[in-house]
Amino acid sequence: MPTPDLHLDPSIAARLRRDAAGLVPAVVQQHDTGEVLMLGWMDDEALRRTLTEGRVTFWSRSRGEYWRKGDTSGHTQHVRSVALDCDGDTLLVRVDQVGAACHTGDRTCFDAGDLAAVVAPALSPGGEPGRDGPV
Amino acid sequence: MPTPDLHLDPSIAARLRRDAAGLVPAVVQQHDTGEVLMLGWMDDEALRRTLTEGRVTFWSRSRGEYWRKGDTSGHTQHVRSVALDCDGDTLLVRVDQVGAACHTGDRTCFDAGDLAAVVAPALSPGGEPGRDGPV
Repeated sequence: MPTPDLHLDPSIAARLRRDAAGLVPAVVQQHDTGEVLMLGWMDDEALRRTLTEGRVTFWSRSRGEYWRKGDTSGHTQHVRSVALDCDGDTLLVRVDQVGAACHTGDRTCFDAGDLAAVVAPALSPGGEPGRDGPV
Repeated sequence: MPTPDLHLDPSIAARLRRDAAGLVPAVVQQHDTGEVLMLGWMDDEALRRTLTEGRVTFWSRSRGEYWRKGDTSGHTQHVRSVALDCDGDTLLVRVDQVGAACHTGDRTCFDAGDLAAVVAPALSPGGEPGRDGPV
């Protein structure tokens, strides 16, 4: 049997800008609806597993261990694409989410958290404010 | 004139779980298309400004200063909603983005960063793997 490659691709590792704990935030998005489901954290090994296993693995900061989403809950995340941002310090993982992404049972971790905000007037199609408001 | 309230709403501040630098990550999403545009960082004051000004303000970790998106580039972010996640350590800010969200000129900071990933088989409408693949 070939020896499995247990290191993250060096060309990807070289682009990662990790925090002091060696982690980068990973935004998880439902690939077709665009819902932002949650944010987790990955080190090099969690990213390697996510890129090679078809399932999303995080590093759990609270438990101090790898956490393959859904192994306990059944609410698995199936990888559709992974992108690194322009400065290498954030990942965007597009998935097919089975069931609820949030441990509360909500579809996303943001469903119950709306904050009161002053909302800007809608923009015009050209990108200038004021489409829906009086000129 | 009334004295402006320059403190973040205490009921919101009490829910925030900040990192060691006093920051939480803020995922920024185009409200209608669902595009994840970028991720920035906010302290209490950046969040207060974002909730009250109709424009998104971050804390720039590299420059060590507040940064109201678009003041220099013109690529402003107009707030549509703000949500805090289930455990209080991540924000989701839905916006109307004027022009490019990324300093590279790309629409999003993830446009140029696709990583090679093993992609999972598509899920069935019921959430089980296998819809598009052979059974």
